[in-house]
Amino acid sequence: MALRTPKEYKEALRDGREVYIHGERVKDVTTHPAIKAAVEHASFDYEIYNDPELKALAVVKDENGKSISRYYRIPRTTEDLLLRHKLIDLSTERNGGVVTFIRAIGSDSIFASMIVASMVDKTAGTDYSQHVAKFLEHCKQNDLSLAGAITDVKGDRGKHPHEQSDLDLYLRIVKERDDGIIVRGAKMHTTSAPYVDELIVLPTRAMTANDTEFSIAFAIPVATKGIKLIARPMGSPASSEFENPLSSRHIHLHSLTIFDDVFVPWERVFLCREWQAAGPLAHYFAIWHRFTGVSYKAPSGDQLIGAAQLIAEYNGVADASHIRSKIADLIAYTECIRAHAKAAALDCKMIEGIAVPNPATINVGKYLFARGFHDAVRSVQDIAGGLTVTIPTEADWKSPQTHGFVEKYLKGSSDISTENRVKLFYLIRDLVAGEGAGEHQVVSLHGEGSLEAQRIAAYREYDLEKCKRLVKQWAGIE
Amino acid sequence: MALRTPKEYKEALRDGREVYIHGERVKDVTTHPAIKAAVEHASFDYEIYNDPELKALAVVKDENGKSISRYYRIPRTTEDLLLRHKLIDLSTERNGGVVTFIRAIGSDSIFASMIVASMVDKTAGTDYSQHVAKFLEHCKQNDLSLAGAITDVKGDRGKHPHEQSDLDLYLRIVKERDDGIIVRGAKMHTTSAPYVDELIVLPTRAMTANDTEFSIAFAIPVATKGIKLIARPMGSPASSEFENPLSSRHIHLHSLTIFDDVFVPWERVFLCREWQAAGPLAHYFAIWHRFTGVSYKAPSGDQLIGAAQLIAEYNGVADASHIRSKIADLIAYTECIRAHAKAAALDCKMIEGIAVPNPATINVGKYLFARGFHDAVRSVQDIAGGLTVTIPTEADWKSPQTHGFVEKYLKGSSDISTENRVKLFYLIRDLVAGEGAGEHQVVSLHGEGSLEAQRIAAYREYDLEKCKRLVKQWAGIE
Amino acid sequence: MALRTPKEYKEALRDGREVYIHGERVKDVTTHPAIKAAVEHASFDYEIYNDPELKALAVVKDENGKSISRYYRIPRTTEDLLLRHKLIDLSTERNGGVVTFIRAIGSDSIFASMIVASMVDKTAGTDYSQHVAKFLEHCKQNDLSLAGAITDVKGDRGKHPHEQSDLDLYLRIVKERDDGIIVRGAKMHTTSAPYVDELIVLPTRAMTANDTEFSIAFAIPVATKGIKLIARPMGSPASSEFENPLSSRHIHLHSLTIFDDVFVPWERVFLCREWQAAGPLAHYFAIWHRFTGVSYKAPSGDQLIGAAQLIAEYNGVADASHIRSKIADLIAYTECIRAHAKAAALDCKMIEGIAVPNPATINVGKYLFARGFHDAVRSVQDIAGGLTVTIPTEADWKSPQTHGFVEKYLKGSSDISTENRVKLFYLIRDLVAGEGAGEHQVVSLHGEGSLEAQRIAAYREYDLEKCKRLVKQWAGIE
Amino acid sequence: MALRTPKEYKEALRDGREVYIHGERVKDVTTHPAIKAAVEHASFDYEIYNDPELKALAVVKDENGKSISRYYRIPRTTEDLLLRHKLIDLSTERNGGVVTFIRAIGSDSIFASMIVASMVDKTAGTDYSQHVAKFLEHCKQNDLSLAGAITDVKGDRGKHPHEQSDLDLYLRIVKERDDGIIVRGAKMHTTSAPYVDELIVLPTRAMTANDTEFSIAFAIPVATKGIKLIARPMGSPASSEFENPLSSRHIHLHSLTIFDDVFVPWERVFLCREWQAAGPLAHYFAIWHRFTGVSYKAPSGDQLIGAAQLIAEYNGVADASHIRSKIADLIAYTECIRAHAKAAALDCKMIEGIAVPNPATINVGKYLFARGFHDAVRSVQDIAGGLTVTIPTEADWKSPQTHGFVEKYLKGSSDISTENRVKLFYLIRDLVAGEGAGEHQVVSLHGEGSLEAQRIAAYREYDLEKCKRLVKQWAGIE
Repeated sequence: MALRTPKEYKEALRDGREVYIHGERVKDVTTHPAIKAAVEHASFDYEIYNDPELKALAVVKDENGKSISRYYRIPRTTEDLLLRHKLIDLSTERNGGVVTFIRAIGSDSIFASMIVASMVDKTAGTDYSQHVAKFLEHCKQNDLSLAGAITDVKGDRGKHPHEQSDLDLYLRIVKERDDGIIVRGAKMHTTSAPYVDELIVLPTRAMTANDTEFSIAFAIPVATKGIKLIARPMGSPASSEFENPLSSRHIHLHSLTIFDDVFVPWERVFLCREWQAAGPLAHYFAIWHRFTGVSYKAPSGDQLIGAAQLIAEYNGVADASHIRSKIADLIAYTECIRAHAKAAALDCKMIEGIAVPNPATINVGKYLFARGFHDAVRSVQDIAGGLTVTIPTEADWKSPQTHGFVEKYLKGSSDISTENRVKLFYLIRDLVAGEGAGEHQVVSLHGEGSLEAQRIAAYREYDLEKCKRLVKQWAGIE
Repeated sequence: MALRTPKEYKEALRDGREVYIHGERVKDVTTHPAIKAAVEHASFDYEIYNDPELKALAVVKDENGKSISRYYRIPRTTEDLLLRHKLIDLSTERNGGVVTFIRAIGSDSIFASMIVASMVDKTAGTDYSQHVAKFLEHCKQNDLSLAGAITDVKGDRGKHPHEQSDLDLYLRIVKERDDGIIVRGAKMHTTSAPYVDELIVLPTRAMTANDTEFSIAFAIPVATKGIKLIARPMGSPASSEFENPLSSRHIHLHSLTIFDDVFVPWERVFLCREWQAAGPLAHYFAIWHRFTGVSYKAPSGDQLIGAAQLIAEYNGVADASHIRSKIADLIAYTECIRAHAKAAALDCKMIEGIAVPNPATINVGKYLFARGFHDAVRSVQDIAGGLTVTIPTEADWKSPQTHGFVEKYLKGSSDISTENRVKLFYLIRDLVAGEGAGEHQVVSLHGEGSLEAQRIAAYREYDLEKCKRLVKQWAGIE
Repeated sequence: MALRTPKEYKEALRDGREVYIHGERVKDVTTHPAIKAAVEHASFDYEIYNDPELKALAVVKDENGKSISRYYRIPRTTEDLLLRHKLIDLSTERNGGVVTFIRAIGSDSIFASMIVASMVDKTAGTDYSQHVAKFLEHCKQNDLSLAGAITDVKGDRGKHPHEQSDLDLYLRIVKERDDGIIVRGAKMHTTSAPYVDELIVLPTRAMTANDTEFSIAFAIPVATKGIKLIARPMGSPASSEFENPLSSRHIHLHSLTIFDDVFVPWERVFLCREWQAAGPLAHYFAIWHRFTGVSYKAPSGDQLIGAAQLIAEYNGVADASHIRSKIADLIAYTECIRAHAKAAALDCKMIEGIAVPNPATINVGKYLFARGFHDAVRSVQDIAGGLTVTIPTEADWKSPQTHGFVEKYLKGSSDISTENRVKLFYLIRDLVAGEGAGEHQVVSLHGEGSLEAQRIAAYREYDLEKCKRLVKQWAGIE
Repeated sequence: MALRTPKEYKEALRDGREVYIHGERVKDVTTHPAIKAAVEHASFDYEIYNDPELKALAVVKDENGKSISRYYRIPRTTEDLLLRHKLIDLSTERNGGVVTFIRAIGSDSIFASMIVASMVDKTAGTDYSQHVAKFLEHCKQNDLSLAGAITDVKGDRGKHPHEQSDLDLYLRIVKERDDGIIVRGAKMHTTSAPYVDELIVLPTRAMTANDTEFSIAFAIPVATKGIKLIARPMGSPASSEFENPLSSRHIHLHSLTIFDDVFVPWERVFLCREWQAAGPLAHYFAIWHRFTGVSYKAPSGDQLIGAAQLIAEYNGVADASHIRSKIADLIAYTECIRAHAKAAALDCKMIEGIAVPNPATINVGKYLFARGFHDAVRSVQDIAGGLTVTIPTEADWKSPQTHGFVEKYLKGSSDISTENRVKLFYLIRDLVAGEGAGEHQVVSLHGEGSLEAQRIAAYREYDLEKCKRLVKQWAGIE
């Protein structure tokens, strides 16, 4: 099968999958009013093949000379990582600053599985590597879309999986059969799951010897019996494009993903009870996924910069020293993120033949973007002013009773039309003060793991021994 | 007339006022679905008279022994200021952490007008003081509600009023008559205007000798001919109380307030062309209003603290060191705000016989709460986790098709019911991640003037000369 | 005995005390070149009696109408606390921004002991309260100077006192006799100990039932047999007054205070093995001492403000927007500290008849000043410029070979003499870039307990239950 | 001439140069007690040729196959920049975290001059490029050391050079002769000038058409008639190596560099009155120099990390969550700096045939290291504890009277000798609390330009137009 068209992508989603939204079963995710926008947004990953400028970035040849999506190319060099970074960066830039998420997380999961499967096979004599390789080939050849289901619902976060009051609070093996395993549990925050072909499921954390039944990884079609997705409506998909120029068009949904005794055939199993490997698998996934995160965050920073600079001009304050100072800080924030993506690619580590983004660098990059995002948002709100929330509505703008007053009195700098200023305020509201704004903030913090997770990872990955050795030398300590 | 009941307050709002929302004229603000909740929220200022605990705080005797609202008591001592602070603090605490805003801003405006009118009268031989005093008496005796209309729409912020391409971009006198003046222009961000009795209108900034026609202050009933309010719908008033426990009940609206050639009788005029007084009037209003701001912000901090601590317990992580550390920072944020309100009252300055909150202290207090709010929000989002945005909807919770899964899988700490955890997540979403959340952030920044405005004010108010003198002494500089 | 003169204070220090500095026994602390400046600085506490302006603040009447130092007045009201605050504030302002520390810490220790002794006496039937009261009377009547020895050397901070490899790493009772106890161990960071009359010794932390022998408090003359002080030289006392206008004159020393089997008579013992009281005693001391800290820190902030504003003027950049913005932040920092001192006094708590500064407020105040000090220093360094470290030396200024060039080329703003600019740079160097600067920074962090200690205290002292209750109500949680 | 030995480097400094320190003429900078340590530190740049590991990094072949210092290799590729970065990084790491500064600034200046000379030659028909090339060849072939004299003393910073009360406050041409020019004025903060062979002198800022006489660049031997250096003593070179393990050995000095009517021959002139080029020259120098800054700052971060981790272990608190969290922040700080150096090399720009570090990236990198340094220092001070300033002196440690007590009572974690803990405290004191510590802080801020300079540069270098274009597209603005 060749590269798919957006139409083929969407058609494949009409496969009987069990998706719920607002408490009701969805007949067709491609047409449902609360999901449709997300599907259209996601389908950019297929539209890109027709973009003359981006095609060269998005499509590569596999070893047989066949065209495949770059997302499924295993990175072997710094150059591969930089191009993967650029693909994510540009796709986000073309889509309202919102990453398209139907390949990135999935391939992040595959690369992590590939590394750990290879490690496990060597010690345990398993053949998981072949399972993963075959699944990747399946994704490549059929140009599939893919979601990663990682985060368990976790119940009491102070307890291990086997200590939970309900063992199903972490996804687990409830039965083993000759042809595969039956699993039960639920994953949450499963991004894009309602509108992708396949799910790849990984452990959410390191496990102990008592947690073997929770140490599982596999891939499975979304439309498998027993998989039920409760989709969370996001942004303002029901709103007008006029008032919500971003969130009415560029969103992705997350689901509570329920595994109600789902059968997984052996050939799709990537880890099964090897509890020592659960931690490394979560670890490598985090590295890959944070590389994705750092890659899509820079264009989101450019969005804040552009909005701040433009509204400053429209308001007539672009030359004020304190305004420039705040925009310079937005620039520092954004450039810093981009620098970490590039440096992580430059200093990648070869692990099981795969070029892995530098773990310390990428954890720090993700940490800094998460830690600084609220400050960045604050600067935009600060520069734009109170109209960000008190701007009259689209209806006020359009009503004959009120339009005249709104047009007269919302005039800003004399060379800018009130209409353009109003449009810009709607965009800024959508970006930093509407419902989508809160989501962006929370996703910035938790999207690829929490602040604390990245701090811990940075602490572990950094070469502390070298630092201590240097200090001892300088201090004359033997 | 005695203290009014909530019913009387609401009835008085059916006075033919010209209010628009979503582009349409509103018949009755007390019943309109997009305004009703704000009116109910505001009416707490009248319900409070029946609260046995708060009545003593809310009601005071005037010089004739008549019961009046404390808001209309002119502060003469630290004690008066502390009680005014406490009234605002407790009213906010009782109303979802959202200040009731139908007396505070108005009386802030009156006190500022009273001080500056007294100053102007002395030099200009006017009798503005009597106008203000009479208006205050009117508010007192009729137990009125009141909004302050301060911020002009301003056009190009880099230009003075008289330099604007359209002179109406700052409110101005278009005609003077024997019996009063006719004004034209628009104010924005006019909080609570659609559902109060009177507007008090002040200049938004210092004026120059070229800006005399823009140097005006007055009070006027909302239902005056020519006043048109374009109200901005806020929060999620149409949402369910289940999913939006705060923003469905506790909101205030702002309006774009248009003065379409409005007549103001002389006895209601508090400033007319004395341009040198425009700056001081804006200045004193800012001090009073920032005292109000600092007073209502502390309970809003308690809201964040309570939400963070409770969800940490529900999630099973309340004992983690980094969680406690973040909550301690929330406490520092909140206690700091409260300390500034109290210290500003303690070190008040007597000006024209009125006890004015300490200008340096109160500007710093407002500045610190604005500067730190986004960090505080981030901590709550960080502690609560990703469910803040991916939590299934009320419909999912209630639908027989999905309720079972949601109840089973959103279980947290074993001694907490899933229902309570879900309710808490809805509240947190409403507080820090929904549409109201963005509004809170912007209002924190711009509510009582921008960060930069407070920095400038703090710089001006502080005793720099003393600091320089000390340094010179220490350095031996003569 | 009446209030003492500076001369009497100094004479009393020639009592045979065992003080070491630079590894050698000191004959006379009042004349030793590395200690003399500290003694002169401290003696301000006696000179103040002759200051017509400050005398009224520094001297109060005891119940017998006798003049005593205000430091020994037990606070009973907000007013008492505010005046104690003002005394510390002004004494610091008069002494180069460096607190005089020969009464404050000692009386902090006495008030804490008084509260806890009263509590212990009620449950244990002891008469510690009388011991403390008698000791306070002794200090009052003889107008003594006093240091607090609190922090044990602590060994491995991860272990309890009884778990240390050497039990002497926490001060402990080694023998009990009929007439008293014999103690061994060492306290560190004992501020001013080499030049005060008496030491008051308190436990540094909460103790467990296994730590009874370490649960001791008492007061003792410095010149007692077995007490050995290893004093740490500080600042630049040997430097010239020209180059080090602050640190050559205004310093206090700390000592490693060794108790080499020291006898303490019963009447001087304030706690002996009542381990449950060790925590409360450390706690109340911390509250009192943080009130002192917050009180002396505000004038230190004024010092930074004055230095920054003055050098900006001398450099010709005082009107730059970013400079004003940074000075405004210094103002916010300083005013915030002062606000907490005042609010803590206003909301004091009556405990055992003593007006105790509000624990939550004062912990937050100390936390914020410690957290923000480095930023404040950075602003001053930033505004002053690189000359802060590259300024030619006093010798360059005075040498005929170089003076001409230095005078010509270090000219700043044309109306300021180079000499004054040079003097100001020396002061700023001394304040934020010389050896004393690093000490200020560390003392800011650790002076009255670490950042973490204050976070923990703020978390414990705040009314979390109220916050949780409010959130539950709003969320409809029962 | 071949690569020089340290001995040859030092011998060449005995050339009659006119250096003053403490107001007196220095006879021999290589033996003067206040300068010697800086010379020894600097000579590492020649010792490195004998380091088997570093030689390959430090020495490259020129086009004729001759061995030269890598510092004089013109970067043509990313790889060249990365190796230059690594050379600076490792040289710093080997020298107490203090960069050796006798080639880096000089070659930064040469590369900037080369770019701008080439630009000027094209438009003005000059042959400055040949002058610069010849000078570079001179440095290469004679393996010289070099300082950059950039920052003028500047007088009133609010005024242009030609507006100063004394025109000499910016270096200027006082006379033009057939064979060259005579210059007068002074540069300050001239790092390493007292102990290098040559000075390269550049304009400190953009000039106007009225400032032609101040628009000059050239290179000149230090020992030229009329050049007088007033060297600033730094660190604690007179202190013992025991107490000041870093600042007694690893320092660089700065001088006030006076040009008392100094003759510069034409062949050494790189810019003469072309005022339009002064800004670009300062700009390109800043980019190069900030690349150097970002390169040497990362090992300085490792120093802080190592010190913090080691003292946490010695104190017994390395496992505390808040300690790890602070160290993770130190790691984030350091890794972020390194990422900017690498990303700036990766995204270099080819200008006049030279690979220039990416201007936006490198400005942001420098900005972030300057902005965050004080926080990093605070963390180390916080983790280490108060002993950082109260640690007994070397004399206390060595004196028979006190050694026993110090050894007994400064014991930390039981498996660490007190001696090692004491040594580590001296190192930390030296690093973050002694005299050198304040210098580090100021140099971090001002070393390669102020915070504000980097903000302005970042604002100018970033592609704001692209950001605005994206926002307009999303908002539907035409």
